[in-house]
Order: sequence, then structure tokens, then C-alpha cells
Amino acid sequence: MPPAGAGVAAVAPPEDGRVRVVIDQLVPSVDGGRFAGKCIAGEATDLCAHVFTDGHDQLRARLHWRADGQAPSGEVEMVLDANDEWHAHVVFPAPGRYLFGVTAWVDALCSWQHDLARRVDAEDIRVAARVGAELIDAAAARAAGEDRRALAAWAERLRNEAATARAETLKALALDGVFSEIAARYPDRRWAASHPERPLFADRLKARFSSWYEMFPRSASPEPGRHGRFADVQARLPYVAEMGFDVLYFPPIHPIGRERRKGPNNALVARPDDVGSPWAIGAAEGGHKSILPALGTPEDFRRLCAKAQEFGLDVALDIALQCAPDHPYVQQHPQWFRWRPDGSVQYAENPPKKYQDIYPFNFECDDWRALWLELKSIFDHWIGEGVKIFRVDNPHTKAFPFWEWCIAAIQREHPDVLFLAEAFTRPKVMHRLAKLGFSQSYTYFTWRNTKQELTEYFSELAHGPGAHYFRPNAWPNTPDILNEHLHHAERAVFAARLVLAATLSANYGLYGPAYELMDNRPLRAGGEEYLDSEKYQLRHWDIERPESLRYLIARVNRIRRDNPALHDNRSLRFMPVDNERLIAYSKRSADGANTLLIVVNLDPHQTQSGVVDVHLQALGIAPDTEYTVHDLLSGQRFTWRNGPNFVQLDPQHSPAHVFAVQQHLRSERDYEAFEG
Amino acid sequence: MPPAGAGVAAVAPPEDGRVRVVIDQLVPSVDGGRFAGKCIAGEATDLCAHVFTDGHDQLRARLHWRADGQAPSGEVEMVLDANDEWHAHVVFPAPGRYLFGVTAWVDALCSWQHDLARRVDAEDIRVAARVGAELIDAAAARAAGEDRRALAAWAERLRNEAATARAETLKALALDGVFSEIAARYPDRRWAASHPERPLFADRLKARFSSWYEMFPRSASPEPGRHGRFADVQARLPYVAEMGFDVLYFPPIHPIGRERRKGPNNALVARPDDVGSPWAIGAAEGGHKSILPALGTPEDFRRLCAKAQEFGLDVALDIALQCAPDHPYVQQHPQWFRWRPDGSVQYAENPPKKYQDIYPFNFECDDWRALWLELKSIFDHWIGEGVKIFRVDNPHTKAFPFWEWCIAAIQREHPDVLFLAEAFTRPKVMHRLAKLGFSQSYTYFTWRNTKQELTEYFSELAHGPGAHYFRPNAWPNTPDILNEHLHHAERAVFAARLVLAATLSANYGLYGPAYELMDNRPLRAGGEEYLDSEKYQLRHWDIERPESLRYLIARVNRIRRDNPALHDNRSLRFMPVDNERLIAYSKRSADGANTLLIVVNLDPHQTQSGVVDVHLQALGIAPDTEYTVHDLLSGQRFTWRNGPNFVQLDPQHSPAHVFAVQQHLRSERDYEAFEG
Repeated sequence: MPPAGAGVAAVAPPEDGRVRVVIDQLVPSVDGGRFAGKCIAGEATDLCAHVFTDGHDQLRARLHWRADGQAPSGEVEMVLDANDEWHAHVVFPAPGRYLFGVTAWVDALCSWQHDLARRVDAEDIRVAARVGAELIDAAAARAAGEDRRALAAWAERLRNEAATARAETLKALALDGVFSEIAARYPDRRWAASHPERPLFADRLKARFSSWYEMFPRSASPEPGRHGRFADVQARLPYVAEMGFDVLYFPPIHPIGRERRKGPNNALVARPDDVGSPWAIGAAEGGHKSILPALGTPEDFRRLCAKAQEFGLDVALDIALQCAPDHPYVQQHPQWFRWRPDGSVQYAENPPKKYQDIYPFNFECDDWRALWLELKSIFDHWIGEGVKIFRVDNPHTKAFPFWEWCIAAIQREHPDVLFLAEAFTRPKVMHRLAKLGFSQSYTYFTWRNTKQELTEYFSELAHGPGAHYFRPNAWPNTPDILNEHLHHAERAVFAARLVLAATLSANYGLYGPAYELMDNRPLRAGGEEYLDSEKYQLRHWDIERPESLRYLIARVNRIRRDNPALHDNRSLRFMPVDNERLIAYSKRSADGANTLLIVVNLDPHQTQSGVVDVHLQALGIAPDTEYTVHDLLSGQRFTWRNGPNFVQLDPQHSPAHVFAVQQHLRSERDYEAFEG
Repeated sequence: MPPAGAGVAAVAPPEDGRVRVVIDQLVPSVDGGRFAGKCIAGEATDLCAHVFTDGHDQLRARLHWRADGQAPSGEVEMVLDANDEWHAHVVFPAPGRYLFGVTAWVDALCSWQHDLARRVDAEDIRVAARVGAELIDAAAARAAGEDRRALAAWAERLRNEAATARAETLKALALDGVFSEIAARYPDRRWAASHPERPLFADRLKARFSSWYEMFPRSASPEPGRHGRFADVQARLPYVAEMGFDVLYFPPIHPIGRERRKGPNNALVARPDDVGSPWAIGAAEGGHKSILPALGTPEDFRRLCAKAQEFGLDVALDIALQCAPDHPYVQQHPQWFRWRPDGSVQYAENPPKKYQDIYPFNFECDDWRALWLELKSIFDHWIGEGVKIFRVDNPHTKAFPFWEWCIAAIQREHPDVLFLAEAFTRPKVMHRLAKLGFSQSYTYFTWRNTKQELTEYFSELAHGPGAHYFRPNAWPNTPDILNEHLHHAERAVFAARLVLAATLSANYGLYGPAYELMDNRPLRAGGEEYLDSEKYQLRHWDIERPESLRYLIARVNRIRRDNPALHDNRSLRFMPVDNERLIAYSKRSADGANTLLIVVNLDPHQTQSGVVDVHLQALGIAPDTEYTVHDLLSGQRFTWRNGPNFVQLDPQHSPAHVFAVQQHLRSERDYEAFEG
């Protein structure tokens, strides 16, 4: 084999080698711009570029952005923070897809001033003044009108005084603020570098901060044994709203297949009056765009959505792209399914497991374009009915390219629509779905119970490479998952897991009333199914039971709403505690005005105490000053000072401290500052 | 402002939505393929792709690679390890630039077999056999000749026996190894996905594993006061080779400027017989392509390089792209410099500091193309003289695009030439230089002294995002840096820093004879300059002094050479020790055959002892078995078992244990294995 370079043409130099500035990276940037980073419309988004050059010349960097398909905005001057990281804050005016890019250049005039300010030798300053006059002349040539005249005058004065003026006078003239500001408007950008644009999707705030309540409408009836209706759900809106939730999410509301219907506890054969699983979608009455008649009419549903809005609740629908054997699609579009040699449709299976009541779509069918359009039209239909949030069932069992297209196409028309990916699967698969456009993602929270597990996992979510596109939504339970830790668990476990989910993750949700009523009965030890799961039968919940967690939930959600520190995950910081059963972490709002310190007792049985090693800087507290920690759960207040502070939690009393941290207004340090 | 999507055309679906496999990432991949990852020619390089699809279908993935500018090689089948990471090992035959890409597809036939193996229901297996027969027919249609006949026969047998054969017989036929192997050669790749190629640069091994010895040729004379010559260096080759180094690196060897020459200890005015700084390059006798006559002739230099090769030593030259005021370039190419209004050339400065003996090139000059070509020709000249390794002085003060072009252009013709970047500067700048093509990079090792500093820094180097392109070269001293920890330091400090550099980093170097003779006298307390620095004057070194570290260095370099674990950094793993002054870490060769555990006492004064919490898995040791740790420095052997093990180091005796770890061949576990 010849040497590797043998067949290759000579290496060509770049078009202009004088472009010395380097824009190494834009942040956020997902897979080199292949996917969009995520942010929130209407708030200041921090955009960053890594910019530097050889030597110590001064740089300038400007950011430009535009809504996708529109012309660029003006430029925003970026500011060097530290470590060659330049920042600009942009408020994207409305939800939608945007692009941002950066231009930077070596600024000879700024460099000249920066150096001049440091010069001490008088002769040196005189020569430098003459160098500067030439640079200012060039700036004048780029300017026009009054500015041009002002700059020319500045250059001339510098040149005239270079020979005679005192060094200090010359220096003051060279660094003159007014002239400098004029000159800054006419930079020499001949050798500016540009970094290719990167896409960003700006969502409405609920994409990042939301509190979900999941319930089965059919179990909402106040009378035991009667099938619940949308009207019953409507009557329960005050209950849900009082708990402080802002998303009300329903499992599928469509007609349920009769063929091969499952009975209670997933029995293979259903009795005639068994209600079946809402995820076995479609029957003679209709499919994914229809409503199970027992729940009500489309009009009832629209009324419910509108009423929910009055309570600050978005209704979220579950979209499960699969069919019961009697779904109308099977007759109307047989080409969308896989057929077996025996003339039957291929049901879902993962041998040896069979799901004979579910037909998956065949995403490899020749008619895939029509299939995609129809599936997208399901979302469009419900958007038309007033739904703006979708929880997508098992998106990782449908073709990935479909999601990228479908979400982009929908959000192009409805940029305020949100998608939650219900994919409990391998990490790279979950991350891909988030990159493809899902606004939020379920997490492994349910299986993270120890201090180490929680610390590692939530550190990764808050600070890992996925932080720019993967928005976690933490659930202590779902209709599919009664985690072993909740089997026969006591109130203290439910309370602790609630506080953890609600404070570790800006998005969280509960499946109720199972959660607030502390349903802790598994179908089987070691499994995760509920006994008498609502997935297969009606349940009646006595929501007024006095031991309900509803008041604790209301308090926690109120704390979430009132404290911006909890509206984002990026500030999350764990702090050491010398007790494995106590976990401590802080969150802080972007403006620093709101700081929380949370301590949770992971032991449901014993009082645990320990010393939290408070990281003062993360809380914005100066050393050697007193500060108050105010427990927003219990109302208790403690005065702390410096790092190590004692905490004690009795799980029978409270599972956690959710401390608001307040620096004392008056300390000797503050007096100094006022006098200084 | 209209909603963001308003001006945008509808989102188009992809060309073929049936491409379900996702190739999310190739590793290594530097900045999305903008730069080349680095590897070594002639050894197995692990290349990885993150590949998955929806559901649980079986995939196949193949890697293809090619030398840049040549046609692709054949394909290499990739193997799934864990976490959706697929691997292939490629041996790049010779140094040079390569490209690799990956193709993957959902394999219906493999999926069918995978599912079938798990089926238990007999009727199910019969239907599945008929499904499989269709898939095999399709494979037969893609095959030809004997293979086609064999596959068609397989399909027919399956179909014939589907109705009558026992389930187990059918299963065995469906999973038949011989037929499967034939079918695997004719996969259905209609819906294969391809990931764009990523570049890689394969270096010779010395790029990753090298031991540098820096010395000033002019101080090599055995007679005090006489200017050293290449012939003196030649006489010293056995000394350097006996210490076990394989790179011999000289500061610039060119004529030294006379104008504004610096005197001893950087005195502003030189006396007539002062020798000046070798970095003030160029005088009447010549510039960057000439040799200082006092050192010898070009013939002497070529002879030295050839002789060094016989001792296994590559000569490395220092290339400092800057000029003394009397460099011939200044007269011949005044357009390559910046001129001041007073008619003088702009010297190097960082106000208020001035370096009036140094003229930097103006990389913004109009004649930049000619400048670039001339600078590259300096490297070409010395390559012609037999030099294959360059240490580049302050590359971060020259335009970055120049380096990218220059290194690529040189390595295109000479892919075995290596470049070490002497950039002690901010992290992103150092990383950029490594991305642009520098084979090795100086590090912050000199300023990392505590256990925490060393652990964090070398963990980042070994496992951080730079690991694929930034190859550290650790130096405990350089002519510019006598770190405060070495000021007036004792032997134990020099010994410990030597062992740390040589075992933490596969590339390391010393500036000698200052190091082995333990020169510890700073010019100023708090500074980093040596007193009577060789940079400005001749020094005479008594290399035969009995207290010299040369024998320890020889032993350490011998250990490095004999132990492949030390030839790479990627296996580095730190292990806890319950004593802040003891640091412990392991390294292991890629094949697992060579494992070292190093423990260093960071306290030069006191004996320190503690318990190392050995991570058995990192050492390849099974739990509850005895293993030997054999100190390659002292010869001592200890028998250990499981994790916690006691260590004690007296700095007066030895600064470190460099343990070779050997599992005992015979243990009850091994017997079981032999009998099992």
C-alpha cells in the first residue's frame, strides 16, 4: 500500500489567511447543528461562543439570529465572560424555530487602546499615538457624515499632540470615551470570521416547567361502578387545580377494541362488561380521532378542555400509534400492517411475549407516505379540538424519521404544541428522541432511589451533554410503574418521592388519585404492575380520604410556582451531607434573586440527622455572614453561618426541608459595602 | 412579529421513510468531523458507532475506511458491545490521514432468527417458518450461483416442513449455521443508513509514547567555558541513551541576533562575548535554515542526527517563528513585519512588557501567502536534513489557520513528522492547536502538584472530550519553568515529579542536565526563571556527579519501555487512598496483559502510609484471589488480596511504588476454571 497521502492533491491555503480570529464552538450546538437546542420564548436565553485569536489582541464578537425562514435580526454585541467564552442574551419573541450565528474579528483599534492603557514609557506612548491616528483615519473612512468628521478630528488631534503633549494627556485623548464609542460603530471587519448558524427551538415556558396530573377519566365517577364521563372530570377540576397542577393528562380516550380485549389484571379473556385497555385503540365506533361514547361527546370534550383552561390546566392527550384488531384502519388500510402467511395481521410481539390485542403499524410498508400523513393528522385533529400537549406512548417503537418530520411539521404551524416522549428505554434512544424534537422526556427517576443514584443521575441531566435538548420529566409512579420502593410503602416514602421529583426536576408528574391516596399494592412481588390496575378496569377513588397527600402536594406545587429557582434544572448543585440517608441540593434562579436548599430524608423509618456542608457560593452567600434558611414546608426558620450546618428530619413528621435561603440584609460586610 | 414558522415552507418528509436504522454518532468524531481524531498506525484502532432502531429488530453495521484520496477498503463487520455501541478494530497500515464511515441496516432475516429462537408455541413456530422462507427467497434472489441454489433449497425445505415437522426440528433448520452464514452475505440493504465519513490521522507510535530529553548543545562541552559543538553532543549520546530517552530535543540551533542581544539572566545589555538567546533567531550568517557556526556545520548536524538514530534517538528541533532584528528576512522581506510610524519595526510586546530583541511576523500582511510558504519551507528544510520531530515555540502567537495548513501540507508529504505544541495558555486555545494538527501538546502538569489537582487534571486528559485529539506531554521542568515546588527542592521532590510525569503521561520529557543534576536555584523567589539560565549563557554541567538522578531516570524509562500499560493514557484510573499525601492510580494495556499500579508519596519530607482501596476490576483481578504486586523500582514483592491494602513510602528511600500486578496462576478459582 502506498503512503496514505500519495493520491491526494496538495493542501490549499484558505482564501484569506489573514482571518486570525477563531470561533471554535457555539453553545448550544447539538451534534454540530444537526439538531436544534432548546430554549424558552419570552425570556433571556444565554447564547455562547468560544472565541479567541493568537496572541493577546482584543476581539469583538456579535451574534445574529433570525426566525427560521425569515431575515436576520440586527446584531447583538457579545461580552467576554471568562475562559474565552463570549455571551449574549437574546429574548426570542414567540415560540418557534430560530437560527443563531456569530461573527467575530480582531479589533485593531480596541487592541491599540487596550495596549495603550498599559503603556508607561512616554516615548512609547507618543509613537503609539501616531499608530492610533492611522487606525482612526481608517475608521473615519468607513464612517460618514458627522461621525466621519468627528473621527477625522480625533485622529488629527492625536497626531498633532503626539509630538508635544504630555504622555498622560495623550493617553486620555486616545482613550476618550465619546470618540471610542463612535469608532466602535465602524469596525474593520475585513478579516472577520463567521460561524455557521445553529438551530434552536424556543418553546413556551410549560415545556421546561410543568406539573402533570394523570388520571383515567373513566374512573372519575363519584359513584362506584359507574363509568366516568368527561362531565365527572370537569367536576373534579377544582380538586386537581387546588393541588396546584397545570397539566391534566388522560390516557387514550378513544373507542376500545372488542376483539381479544383484555380483562382485569391483564386477563387474556375479558368478560362481556369488561371495559378493556384504553391503549387497545379502535373499534366499530371509530379510531384515533374518535371518543369512546361512554366518556362523552366531542362537545363534552371541548367543554372540558375550555373549562380546564379556566383552572390553568392544559389538557394533555396520550397518543398511542397502534390499533386494536377492530380498528377501522385495519379494514380501510390493510397495506399499513404486516400480514402473516396465514392471512392474519401480525400483532405486536417480543417473543416469547405476545400482545395479540395490539396491531403495530408497519413503518416499512410501501405506502409509508400516506401512513405518515394520516398519523400526523391524528395530532392535527386533537389540536383542532383544543389540545396543545401530547404524551406520546412508546415513541421508540415507531420509526425515528417519522417523529422528526411529524413534530417539525406540526410545530411549524403550531409552535406552542408540546410533546412528551414516553420512552423508558436505553439512554441513547431516549436522547435521540429528544434531539428529534420531543419537548420533554420521561426519565429513570422511578428507579433512582439511593443518594448516589439520585446525585449521579440528576447531575448528568442538569449538566451533561443532553442538558441543551433533553428536558426531564420525573414521575414517582405511572399506571405502568409501581416501583418496588412503593410496594406496601408508608406515607413517608410517598412524601419523600414527591418532594424529590418536584424539586429535582422542573417538570414532574403524578399518576393519581393512586399517588395521593398512596395505592401501594402490586399485582406481584418483584413486578411493577398495580393490583387491579386501572389500565384494565374501572376504579373508584375516595379522594376525600383524610390521609390523602393532596394537601402536601398542594403545598409543594405552591412552593414550585412561587420559587423561580425550581423552574429550571441547570443550577442544580448537590452538597455533601455526612449521612447516606440524607440528600441535599440547591437550586437558584438565573437572576440570583431566589435560592432554595433542599434536604430530603431517604429513610422512611428513622429520624436522620447530619451536617450539610453548604457551598456558600452556590447559594450566593458571603462567608462569615449570617443567613436565614426558611423551611417552606414546615415554616421553621434557622439562622446559619458559613458551611457546616446541622439538620435533622423525622420522617413521621416531614420528609424534607425545602429551605428558602435569605442573606441577612445587615451584616458588618454590608455596612462596609454601603460605606465603601 | 409574526409567529416564527410563518415564512417557512412545509416540512418535507425524507426521501425514503423506511430507513429506520439510526447511526447517531461515530467515535472518534472531533467537532462533527471538522477535525481529525488521532490514532496510531500499525496497531488495532477501536472505532465505534452508536447504532439503534425502533423496537427490538436486529441490526447489522459495517465500517468502511480509506486513506484520504484513495478508494475505500472493503467493509468490516461491526460488533455490538453494550449501550448501543458497535465496534470494529482497524489497523491503519501506515501513518497518514484516513476517513471512516459506517453503514447499518435493520436485518429482517437476523430479526426473524432472533425471534424464532425465543418462540415456544408450536403453531407460532410453524407460521414463523413460512415467514422466514419468504425472507430467504429474497436473499436467494440477491445471491448467485451455488449460494443462490443453497438458499433457495433452504427456503423450500422450511416451507415443506412447516406443515408437518416438529417445532424443534423446524427451529433447528431455521437457525442452521451453514445456511445462515451464506444468507448473511446477501443482506437486504435497501433501507440502509450511512453516516458521513469522519477523518482520522494515524501517527507513528512515538506520537503517543515518547520520552524527551531537552538539552542546549552549546552547554555540552566537557570543558567549562568552551562553547559546545554538535560533536560534543554526539559524544553525549550514550549518556542520553543510557537514561532511556528516545527523543533528543534542542532549542534553536540557528545564528543568534547581535542587535539588542540579551546578557546573562536576561540583562538588557549584552557584553561582547555573551552568547545571547537561541530564540533571538537570525544574524548576518543566516536565519531559520542556517546553523550557528559555533555549533558546527550542516554536515556535523546531519552526522549527529544519523548517529542519534543509532542510539534510538530522534532529534527534535525547536522552531520559533520570530526574528532577531538582524535576521536576513527583515531586510529581504520588510513586508512581512509591522512598521511603526517612526520607521522602526514593531518588536514583540505585551505592554508594559517589551521584547525588543524579537520581531514577530505580521500574519495580517498583504504578502501572507509568500510568508506562509517561506515559513513552511523552514520545516521542509530541516526534514531534508533528517529531522522528523518539531517542537513549535509559542504556536498560539501565530495565526491558527497557518498551522492547520502548514501541518496538513507537511504531513501530506511526510506523514511520519510529528509536532509538539509549546503552548502554555488557556484551555480552549491549547485544544484548538491540538485539533489543528499538533501531534502532542505541553500540559499544565508543572502547576499540578496536589493529589486533587493531579487527579482532576489527568482524569480530564485521559477521559475528557479532548482524549481523541489532545495528546499530553508532561514536563516537570523546562528552560522557562522552574516551578516553585522545585525551588531549593530536595532529591525526593525531583524523584517524585519524575515518576508522576513518566507514569501519568505516555509522553513526557525533562530539561537536562538541569533535571538530573537537580538544579533548583530560581532567579527570583516567586518567579519561574532559573538562576544563570542557559537561555542566556553557557553552562557547564558535571554529569558524572554521584548524586545525579540519571540511574533512577534510566530505571523509570526502562519500566516505561517494558510495560505497554504506560504507552497510552486511556486506561488511567485513580484509586482512593486514605492519606492526602499518597496518590494511587493504575494503567492497563489494551490487551489486558500488562497492568501497573503506581503509588507516589507527594510529601518529600515524611514517611507516609495509608490504605489503597484497590479497584480489582480495573486491574483484572478476581475477588478473593491472591495477587502479587511487584515494585519495579525497588524489586520488592507483596502478596495482596481484595481491595484495601496497606502501603508505606519513605521519601528518603523511594518516592514511589511502581507495581506490576500479577494474578496468581493457581487459586481455587483457577482450578475450577480448568476443570469446568
